Amino acid sequence: MHLPRPSAVIGHTPAPSMVEYEQAQSILSALIKTLPVPEVEYIPVSQADGRILARDLYALSPRPEADISAMDGYAFCCADIPDTSVHTTAIPLRDYVVAGDQPEPHQKGTAATILTGARLPAGANCVIARERVQISNGMLQLTPSDIAVGKNIRLTGEEFSAGALLYAARQKLDWRHIALLVSQNVKQVAVYKPCRVGVVASGAEFAPNAPDCRAEINTPILQAMLQSRGVHVLSRVVGSDSQQELLEAITELAAHSDILITTGGISVGQTDNVLPVMERLGASCVFRRVKIRPGKPFTLMLLGQKPVFCLPGNPGATAICAQFFVLPFLRLFMGFKPELSASALIGGRSNFAFTPAPDATCFVPVTYAQSGKEGVFSLVPSQGASDILCFSRADGILRIPAGHNLQVGDWCYANPFHPV
Amino acid sequence: MHLPRPSAVIGHTPAPSMVEYEQAQSILSALIKTLPVPEVEYIPVSQADGRILARDLYALSPRPEADISAMDGYAFCCADIPDTSVHTTAIPLRDYVVAGDQPEPHQKGTAATILTGARLPAGANCVIARERVQISNGMLQLTPSDIAVGKNIRLTGEEFSAGALLYAARQKLDWRHIALLVSQNVKQVAVYKPCRVGVVASGAEFAPNAPDCRAEINTPILQAMLQSRGVHVLSRVVGSDSQQELLEAITELAAHSDILITTGGISVGQTDNVLPVMERLGASCVFRRVKIRPGKPFTLMLLGQKPVFCLPGNPGATAICAQFFVLPFLRLFMGFKPELSASALIGGRSNFAFTPAPDATCFVPVTYAQSGKEGVFSLVPSQGASDILCFSRADGILRIPAGHNLQVGDWCYANPFHPV
Repeated sequence: MHLPRPSAVIGHTPAPSMVEYEQAQSILSALIKTLPVPEVEYIPVSQADGRILARDLYALSPRPEADISAMDGYAFCCADIPDTSVHTTAIPLRDYVVAGDQPEPHQKGTAATILTGARLPAGANCVIARERVQISNGMLQLTPSDIAVGKNIRLTGEEFSAGALLYAARQKLDWRHIALLVSQNVKQVAVYKPCRVGVVASGAEFAPNAPDCRAEINTPILQAMLQSRGVHVLSRVVGSDSQQELLEAITELAAHSDILITTGGISVGQTDNVLPVMERLGASCVFRRVKIRPGKPFTLMLLGQKPVFCLPGNPGATAICAQFFVLPFLRLFMGFKPELSASALIGGRSNFAFTPAPDATCFVPVTYAQSGKEGVFSLVPSQGASDILCFSRADGILRIPAGHNLQVGDWCYANPFHPV
Repeated sequence: MHLPRPSAVIGHTPAPSMVEYEQAQSILSALIKTLPVPEVEYIPVSQADGRILARDLYALSPRPEADISAMDGYAFCCADIPDTSVHTTAIPLRDYVVAGDQPEPHQKGTAATILTGARLPAGANCVIARERVQISNGMLQLTPSDIAVGKNIRLTGEEFSAGALLYAARQKLDWRHIALLVSQNVKQVAVYKPCRVGVVASGAEFAPNAPDCRAEINTPILQAMLQSRGVHVLSRVVGSDSQQELLEAITELAAHSDILITTGGISVGQTDNVLPVMERLGASCVFRRVKIRPGKPFTLMLLGQKPVFCLPGNPGATAICAQFFVLPFLRLFMGFKPELSASALIGGRSNFAFTPAPDATCFVPVTYAQSGKEGVFSLVPSQGASDILCFSRADGILRIPAGHNLQVGDWCYANPFHPV
């Protein structure tokens, strides 16, 4: 594996310090700009749901592509009808036009039966809805009030004309965009390649033969969280406290991923191998710990140019760090527009008071309920950084900035787990 | 293909009538209860993201499974420390316990170095955090203020005990639930099988050799919309106005799907083949048209016991019917809990007035923006039932009940397209 020369090596530069929540976010935002833009690939439009458009997309043809009827009815030309205010005019029905037909031009003094979506005969300029008129002996009975140029006709390019910008690059595609691409006969679309993330968990307690063997749950958490967002995840669980095994796993995954995540082994205990292994690999440390609770050990490294999110081993802390740091970072790295939709956060009033530690941004699980027109957040009791059941009892996570005393009735915004 | 005897046959019973929006929803809710419950399958927990739990799930073991240390520190027994109020007591460090170890029982008068998550030696009842104490010559220096039974210890079953109900059936599973299942060493989980939906679009304009050939876009719309919700979609485009070809396509898909959707051919034009074909197949009609705009032709049939959603051909109308009728129906049919999460709808004030037709529930595309603490909805101009570009400019759809005059400043709820 080729590792670019690191810009700073642990121990050779001033020790990177612990940062505030906001500093960590700023550093990550700045880091994104130094990373290569995602590669582009062309995929069939039918498989584009959930992918990110990599190029501005312009209309190849207008929509509608021709003047078409908006109703099942009869097409005629207003100029053919005498300008009388009382009398009914009868004109003969000649053609029959359905969607898909290329109709003959309008013949003066006649009408054509036409179905919704069918192309208007050239020269016709009005459609009367079937249910509004009488037909007798093949003759259409029209009264002057029925007649208006352009009535029930959808004009060429009414929705957009050829060359119009349909979607700007970085648009996330869903059924709405696919519909328009298909209508334009676009077969392939340029999207960003999925991001590849390597996840390495380590700890002797995960060895199948450990006396007190534990199930490793950070990898499944990260896998489900990331895969549901279109990320390709490669993972390895190192079931030992061996630095060499951890080094080999990180080296192997680094060769096949854009971003690395380690979980566990980042505190200062004797089995906390991530930092020593990173040092051996020549990685540089961007920040060492963040003033957050849970998640304080979260450390950001660079292995060459590759970001390495070193997350704590406690699953609650890993989940919080993933939700608040890894996912927003990946979102931008994968090419998403930086703006979040207005409904990405849910707003409401807190029905509880919370005094966080003076020096730590706190993350607490909350439920969300509607009370009249307002949302109300309630605290979900948590047993600490290793508690994961509390999350499945919650609707989202409230971030309480360091030193901010949350009062009952305060308005706040939470990150929902799954908004729908 | 076996088709059960229909309960009512078109033409042999009083003609089913046009229904209101609310009636259509009630009929669909009642229909769900007459349908077979989804089949259950067992899948690996690692693949359970997005699936619906089919059985109540109880804890196999408590969490934590044993008394464990919440910190890197030193474990001892409070009773070993003399009850003095000023002096420091020094006790020798004996064992070293890491996560995964099965430690020796506590030996009176000693302390064990212990790492976060490691099992507490039997008989120890306090952990002091490493950063709070001094070690000299292998002796731990303790002051009385450090000592409290249970300190920094996570007790067996503190999160939950064995036998506790973790999740009730019909829970949609995501990383939070997967984490807990993995921690319980659950390998396989009972989930409902995905629903299979057959989609048939028809129209001569979709034939590749049609003089005015059009791209068929309802199928890609429904495919993307349904597949992103875990539905298996089978589709057929009948590029003709042949009743026989439509009948064959419907018959073929009915044999392999739980629910059918047709698009197009449901108005009253001469090429509107869906009703005649359904009649030939012996289907019964539940309701014929709904007082909504767009989407009025939407008709619900039963082919045996199999629901058939006959949607209009205009893509805007199909999309609205799919969002407001098909998706909620499938959600229940697939086993989801009937309750929507509180954030499934977005609330806000309308910044526009809208007078719907007196007899039709109207659906209008809207954008959503935050203004202070409130959301604000703005109308997205639409060119009518065939307009699909308007949806990709909108954040959601506002439903305006028949006869309700929406005023500027009215509070309302919209269905977001993609909340995050």
